[in-house]
Amino acid sequence: MSKTFEAWRERFERLRANTLFETAVIAIIIFSALLIGAKTYEETGRFQQWLLAMDVAVTVFFLVEILIRMAAEKRLRDFFRQGWNVFDFLIVTASLIPLDDSEMVLLARLLRIFRVLRLVSMIPELRVLMAALVKSIPRMGYVALLMFIIFYIYAALGSFLFADIDDFLWGNISTSMLTLFRVATFEDWTDVMYATQEVYAWSWIYYLTFIFLTAFIFLNMMIGIVLDVMQKESVQMEIESGKGEAAELHGLRRDVRGLRDQLDRMEAALGSRQEGREVDRHGED
Amino acid sequence: MSKTFEAWRERFERLRANTLFETAVIAIIIFSALLIGAKTYEETGRFQQWLLAMDVAVTVFFLVEILIRMAAEKRLRDFFRQGWNVFDFLIVTASLIPLDDSEMVLLARLLRIFRVLRLVSMIPELRVLMAALVKSIPRMGYVALLMFIIFYIYAALGSFLFADIDDFLWGNISTSMLTLFRVATFEDWTDVMYATQEVYAWSWIYYLTFIFLTAFIFLNMMIGIVLDVMQKESVQMEIESGKGEAAELHGLRRDVRGLRDQLDRMEAALGSRQEGREVDRHGED
Amino acid sequence: MSKTFEAWRERFERLRANTLFETAVIAIIIFSALLIGAKTYEETGRFQQWLLAMDVAVTVFFLVEILIRMAAEKRLRDFFRQGWNVFDFLIVTASLIPLDDSEMVLLARLLRIFRVLRLVSMIPELRVLMAALVKSIPRMGYVALLMFIIFYIYAALGSFLFADIDDFLWGNISTSMLTLFRVATFEDWTDVMYATQEVYAWSWIYYLTFIFLTAFIFLNMMIGIVLDVMQKESVQMEIESGKGEAAELHGLRRDVRGLRDQLDRMEAALGSRQEGREVDRHGED
Amino acid sequence: MSKTFEAWRERFERLRANTLFETAVIAIIIFSALLIGAKTYEETGRFQQWLLAMDVAVTVFFLVEILIRMAAEKRLRDFFRQGWNVFDFLIVTASLIPLDDSEMVLLARLLRIFRVLRLVSMIPELRVLMAALVKSIPRMGYVALLMFIIFYIYAALGSFLFADIDDFLWGNISTSMLTLFRVATFEDWTDVMYATQEVYAWSWIYYLTFIFLTAFIFLNMMIGIVLDVMQKESVQMEIESGKGEAAELHGLRRDVRGLRDQLDRMEAALGSRQEGREVDRHGED
Repeated sequence: MSKTFEAWRERFERLRANTLFETAVIAIIIFSALLIGAKTYEETGRFQQWLLAMDVAVTVFFLVEILIRMAAEKRLRDFFRQGWNVFDFLIVTASLIPLDDSEMVLLARLLRIFRVLRLVSMIPELRVLMAALVKSIPRMGYVALLMFIIFYIYAALGSFLFADIDDFLWGNISTSMLTLFRVATFEDWTDVMYATQEVYAWSWIYYLTFIFLTAFIFLNMMIGIVLDVMQKESVQMEIESGKGEAAELHGLRRDVRGLRDQLDRMEAALGSRQEGREVDRHGED
Repeated sequence: MSKTFEAWRERFERLRANTLFETAVIAIIIFSALLIGAKTYEETGRFQQWLLAMDVAVTVFFLVEILIRMAAEKRLRDFFRQGWNVFDFLIVTASLIPLDDSEMVLLARLLRIFRVLRLVSMIPELRVLMAALVKSIPRMGYVALLMFIIFYIYAALGSFLFADIDDFLWGNISTSMLTLFRVATFEDWTDVMYATQEVYAWSWIYYLTFIFLTAFIFLNMMIGIVLDVMQKESVQMEIESGKGEAAELHGLRRDVRGLRDQLDRMEAALGSRQEGREVDRHGED
Repeated sequence: MSKTFEAWRERFERLRANTLFETAVIAIIIFSALLIGAKTYEETGRFQQWLLAMDVAVTVFFLVEILIRMAAEKRLRDFFRQGWNVFDFLIVTASLIPLDDSEMVLLARLLRIFRVLRLVSMIPELRVLMAALVKSIPRMGYVALLMFIIFYIYAALGSFLFADIDDFLWGNISTSMLTLFRVATFEDWTDVMYATQEVYAWSWIYYLTFIFLTAFIFLNMMIGIVLDVMQKESVQMEIESGKGEAAELHGLRRDVRGLRDQLDRMEAALGSRQEGREVDRHGED
Repeated sequence: MSKTFEAWRERFERLRANTLFETAVIAIIIFSALLIGAKTYEETGRFQQWLLAMDVAVTVFFLVEILIRMAAEKRLRDFFRQGWNVFDFLIVTASLIPLDDSEMVLLARLLRIFRVLRLVSMIPELRVLMAALVKSIPRMGYVALLMFIIFYIYAALGSFLFADIDDFLWGNISTSMLTLFRVATFEDWTDVMYATQEVYAWSWIYYLTFIFLTAFIFLNMMIGIVLDVMQKESVQMEIESGKGEAAELHGLRRDVRGLRDQLDRMEAALGSRQEGREVDRHGED
């Protein structure tokens, strides 16, 4: 590795760790977010060219920034080992692809919107929060599966029974699932029920059992997660704070064992004297 | 029991415990669920015969599978001792009954839908989750009774006061209870209230007290369940982790008692010597 | 007190404690509840006389029952010392007052509905639950006051700003509070907002701050109550289970003190011998 | 400082601490709140002059009260050191500014409404509650930021995709955020979805992912806050109650060390005697 190259690498590493540089990147991300927001206002039509110019400037800045980050690593593959870096790289490079085609403008815009997510990768607290959120997904896995099964069964039932009443709501199993999700959020669920009640007067049983089941499972899931997190918390607390008390108890036991050793010595000493005098009294042990 | 029979039983038992066999069963259940879902789409009309054939195939597979399970048991009644087996047996046998009658097609379809529930009986994690859900039902028993009493009283009041205003909502006590459930889910409850307020200007008291009562009881029920589960958790944790500290304390006490015994021996030895010398000094005890 | 009177009193006391009697009372309460429910159906018009007869029978039964309860007490005022007895007495006696006046029929009906509440006073588990609910009211006192202040301020603001836009919703401070309660339950709150936004484009700030404030306070109240209950729980657990460990520690300390006393005695014995021999070596203490 | 002045200061200090004075202030605040409420009723139009007179009286009372509070302090700046005093001062002085201008009447009224908030500053329990609420804000900071980012991205997407479908709901990024808040509160969210589904059939993915994301983050935030508060609680409980057990353990250890010292003395005494006799037996240690 040439000396000049290494000198430049270190310079880039210093730059990357610089708070001013980080603040600048965050500022540019926020600026790019505001740019995206500004474009949604019709009044900004006449600043079209300015917005476009700023857009290009932001894209160039992000490109330079990611190149600096890559240059700061000793080995390039270290850069791609971190998930957030890969995420940043994809977001930045994807926005470089020329999408002049009118059809592709939509995709280009979407990519620009996802740039705002770079805020999460830049602010450590948000990264921690995101990691915690991702970590809590598996806990919900089987409950989500159970809920999906219930949705599926009720949707099949609903589609089978009510398809003739309202094709828009109960036409097939997927629209039925969407309708059931609507019922689960209590969104105008009585309108849905009153319509089917006209044909099947007992259809309120269908809705009420569904609402109770989903609410019940949701409640249990929530409590389950709270308890799961709490248990982990208390185990950790025990490890941390428990040490104090356990150590105290341990020390105490060591002290008591020290006493026994001392007593052993004393007893032996006493015994030796007694033996020395040939005391012939027995039976006291 | 003949040798051949026993050999076959063991072969079935091995097959039942085979992961490939279990995966195949789960795959067929999911396939049967998709089949049910597919039928709800109108476009599948022309594949009618194919769907029917696959339906028969699934039914036969389930029949064979349950026969294998039964043959794998040493005694047939062991099979029926497990609740999930009974559930599976009912679902499978019920779908065998020929329901050619156009009236009965509906029932046959319903039975096929409930086959999806076999997923719960096949996946151990879902079975555990289901058991936990069922276990938490009694905890809610009396709260549900109390809530039912409140619903009943308010429904009687509502039906009595508002029946003339809106017969559809308050016609009799059961429709009133349904309307109150709607109010409890906040579903367009103000429309219901505004209608009755035109006649009884003070009827908002009726709705607000009802909402506060149900929300209040629901809140307390939720907190009660959380605390109930937590208490059980902490008792278990005490049993598990508490042992460590309690054992330490116990060991410590045993050590201290060992010290006393040793001191007793030493004191006796000391005393015997003192007695031997006829030391006649008194008053030190 | 005459012998015969005392004999009758004891007979009533036995009757009151009889499970069959209690079950009968609960059954009659449920029957009376069903009677009330039945009357809300128009189809029951032709059984009017039967219903009336049964109503009278229930009233008489309740009267007899409460007289038995009173007769079972040694002193009548003991009866009125229990809140639930007073409640039962009021419900029963009030339904005795002849209310033939057509105006008063409404009140008579209301009283009959409240009879259902006697179920709560008859089933011990519901009584415990009710006591727990009542006990948790003060915990919410000041939070409810704070929320009322916020509702009042927003209602005054709303009434002052939006009264000209929609008199029905914002006409005066009390209707404004009702409208705000509607907003707090998310019931068609956007309709309310869109109407005011047409005049005051910035009125979304009013709604959003209100929603955040009430949701925030509600959330805090809920968490506060959970923690309050949990703290009480853990204090009780400490008292119950803590005793075990504390007692162990206490016993341990007593043991150690016993050791010291024994050592004191031994040291004194040792010292006395040493004194006896006039050993003149010093400096070891 | 002149004697007379000091005498008056003390008199004011006594007055300020007087419960009757405090009750009077609270009563006047409630009266002023009722006055504000009364004005929102049209029927009070003919009592206009009376209301105005009482308004002036209340303003004068508040002015006198705050002057008494200020006079009761040894140094005036001590008065302004407490946040609630500054708040009271601003509320009271602002309502003194003559706002005869018809335009300014609105501002004058708003200031009078905020007087009700003085209740919070007068009742200590509400002040404690308010402090607790304010303290729990930072805990929500980063979660709120994360939620804002999600709202922003979805709003940009929504405004970009759906602006042509419904300009009122998706016209620009800020109205889109308001619409998304509406979706998050489940307020007629299906109406919004059905409209966009007509053009983009797959737009339900947009709504469902948004609802799951916001519900998921909200759930995690709630659990996070509960756990945060609980952890603080348990740390405090350990400090408070832990002392008892720790102290016990500490005392125990001191006792055991006392035993060792005593044994050391005894061993030394035993050794000295043994040395005195020139016992030449070795090897017992």
